[in-house]
Amino acid sequence: MSKVYVDITMSLDGYIAGPNDNPEQGLGEGGERLHEWIYGLESWRATHNLEGGEKNQDSEILAEAFANTGAVLMGRNMFDFAEEAWGANPPFHAPVFIVTHRSREPLVKEGGTTFTFVTDGLDSAVAQAKAAAGDKDISAAGGASLIQQLLTAGQLDEIQIHVTPLLLGAGRRLFDNMEARPIEMEIDRVVASPVATHLRYRVVKE
Amino acid sequence: MSKVYVDITMSLDGYIAGPNDNPEQGLGEGGERLHEWIYGLESWRATHNLEGGEKNQDSEILAEAFANTGAVLMGRNMFDFAEEAWGANPPFHAPVFIVTHRSREPLVKEGGTTFTFVTDGLDSAVAQAKAAAGDKDISAAGGASLIQQLLTAGQLDEIQIHVTPLLLGAGRRLFDNMEARPIEMEIDRVVASPVATHLRYRVVKE
Repeated sequence: MSKVYVDITMSLDGYIAGPNDNPEQGLGEGGERLHEWIYGLESWRATHNLEGGEKNQDSEILAEAFANTGAVLMGRNMFDFAEEAWGANPPFHAPVFIVTHRSREPLVKEGGTTFTFVTDGLDSAVAQAKAAAGDKDISAAGGASLIQQLLTAGQLDEIQIHVTPLLLGAGRRLFDNMEARPIEMEIDRVVASPVATHLRYRVVKE
Repeated sequence: MSKVYVDITMSLDGYIAGPNDNPEQGLGEGGERLHEWIYGLESWRATHNLEGGEKNQDSEILAEAFANTGAVLMGRNMFDFAEEAWGANPPFHAPVFIVTHRSREPLVKEGGTTFTFVTDGLDSAVAQAKAAAGDKDISAAGGASLIQQLLTAGQLDEIQIHVTPLLLGAGRRLFDNMEARPIEMEIDRVVASPVATHLRYRVVKE
């Protein structure tokens, strides 16, 4: 069955971006360090229309989630911060549904990526993404606020965190602004590599 | 060589205690859930003067750090919150040095635990703990503030986090109030069990 998942890199102290993230610096100050383990991998390079790169376990882990993704959910800040950087052929290659209060005409990009701006709420965006994905999965790409909204709404099924061996000290936390209501998970898989630890969980629904 | 380490249980969202931790409720609201994986283990029960318990990989991981510990560093809040609960025979069985602004006479307990209140700063407490530990290691027991001070001062050598498959949503974060100055680590060991993921890091010193 189709699931909604997040697959994201986080420092051990919980940050997915450095401080002062903005359109000029989408990952914030020092935030690029978080993703250093990714940039040389073949699977990451392929989605970014780049050739070459390392074929290893890390590359496979990055590839497998992407391979079965039929649609993407995204927050408006993430889109605004990264639209320019993604260029004419963004790395999604699937329909992307952006949860926002500001309407905008849909954008059709090269390589199969479309951006649709959903202004009637999170549930509507999830429903549209599920319809577009068919029996494939839905990636919750970020930012942090969108992930938090999905978690709070019970709409997230799987969480894969790539923990980098780093304490960033400041920045944007993935898990923040949540209700004081514990969410249980089941450990689905742990893969250790020298550069990151890949932790995958199933969210237990009430 | 003797090292200063922290060995602590944390939810995936970074909490080591639930909200409103206080002397009546040292782990805060819902915080006991964090440690559920521990209470049935033989090694935990042994340090708490209880018989029986499960002998498994989790129990061994808990035991191995304890086995080579010659002294303990602790913050004053943690001591105040737990002094009563620990009773006459606390689970440290080693000299404990408490970093505090309020002086108090040393306490000698059963089972090898002594509490010494150090009022002349963190460095002095670390030096006293190292002298007491000899060639054994020093455990930084907590709370969060003490760990943060040790990290900021470059006094922490090793971090082992037992990540429980839980989003606690609120409470006391382990990594908080830090400077926006990244601290690099090396992944030393990853052990996966069904109840927790044991991540051990070496802190890279500048």
